[in-house]
Amino acid sequence: MSPELKLYESSASPNSRRIRIFLAEKGIDVSRVPVDLGAKEQFSTAYSRINPRRVVPTLVLGDGTAIGEVPAIMRYLEEDYPNTPLLGASPKDKALVTMWERRMELEGFAAVMETVRNNAAGLKGRAIAGAHDYEQIPALVERGRQRVADFYLDLESRLAEAPFVAGERFSAADITAVVTIDFAAKALSLPIPDTHAASLRWYAIIAARPSMAA
Amino acid sequence: MSPELKLYESSASPNSRRIRIFLAEKGIDVSRVPVDLGAKEQFSTAYSRINPRRVVPTLVLGDGTAIGEVPAIMRYLEEDYPNTPLLGASPKDKALVTMWERRMELEGFAAVMETVRNNAAGLKGRAIAGAHDYEQIPALVERGRQRVADFYLDLESRLAEAPFVAGERFSAADITAVVTIDFAAKALSLPIPDTHAASLRWYAIIAARPSMAA
Repeated sequence: MSPELKLYESSASPNSRRIRIFLAEKGIDVSRVPVDLGAKEQFSTAYSRINPRRVVPTLVLGDGTAIGEVPAIMRYLEEDYPNTPLLGASPKDKALVTMWERRMELEGFAAVMETVRNNAAGLKGRAIAGAHDYEQIPALVERGRQRVADFYLDLESRLAEAPFVAGERFSAADITAVVTIDFAAKALSLPIPDTHAASLRWYAIIAARPSMAA
Repeated sequence: MSPELKLYESSASPNSRRIRIFLAEKGIDVSRVPVDLGAKEQFSTAYSRINPRRVVPTLVLGDGTAIGEVPAIMRYLEEDYPNTPLLGASPKDKALVTMWERRMELEGFAAVMETVRNNAAGLKGRAIAGAHDYEQIPALVERGRQRVADFYLDLESRLAEAPFVAGERFSAADITAVVTIDFAAKALSLPIPDTHAASLRWYAIIAARPSMAA
């Protein structure tokens, strides 16, 4: 237990889940502070002071420094707890994990989020997460579903040539991929297509890891 | 000179410029291979094999490993050449640079790019960079200009409280910010607003660094 680390998070938030799985894989235990998204607690003055983008999760360090953004929280945890590296060990592996994790996020996670945010009635006026309000654009919903389909195609090609997304070892890239897929299945009814054998094999192995319940 | 490192890049590409400035700040010299975007060379079979997303830049290592995506290339260079850290020194600083560099990219760089890509006649059918083709959505142009204005507001707040984007020291976050601003000014005629005193003071200091000519 790191009593000095506080994670502000929500059980329903896919970005929070990325960090929960990361923590579980590394065996790090932190204090958790739930933020009630249903009650719009992320927009409260108290939370906006911790995270001006008004999104979860945020990691608050012992000296009060607030770290927002999933890749930044992962970077802190990896540097402070280098055992069981999830962001790569050598310079080359670190670069490859950064590249693949980013591709999973930009092509997968961001595409799912864009589709959900431009469609959900509860997110009217909040089409982009962050400090500013933007109206929904219906054309992004249709395009988003196509982007998710394209993401699944590219993921299948990748997993046909490598056992894990970033190569030979489980990494943060697998975490972002699996959270993307679970959220796409739940929020958009877009699971891995039945014909994607390599992806389904990979998913079965990943889903069996104890960290996935986090 | 690192004869074993090859950077595929284009002089007109803002993402290539992020890496050129990063290299110049660290004093790393690599072999440069120009990719002619005007002649659509990034779509050639030869280049698609190096970078399946068909974008520049790509860093190719001595063993042939191809690293795409700016943050991944920066990570490789930082780990292999740790002198003059540009991604932070302590775990806390590394996390803060990751957070701020990402905010500059998502809120600034990506907003400028989205606006340009959904507007330029030459980018019809290529509204998103990457392996797949997507049609332009005109509503994103207007929203994009608003996003760039909001980015400038947030940058001004940040630079009123800190000398550099990520805090006390120059970092990759400043590089992404300045490349964003120069491209917004050139491609969208959206320079830093005249009333943003802190941003203008910061910009004058950054623009005087020799690396900016890279």
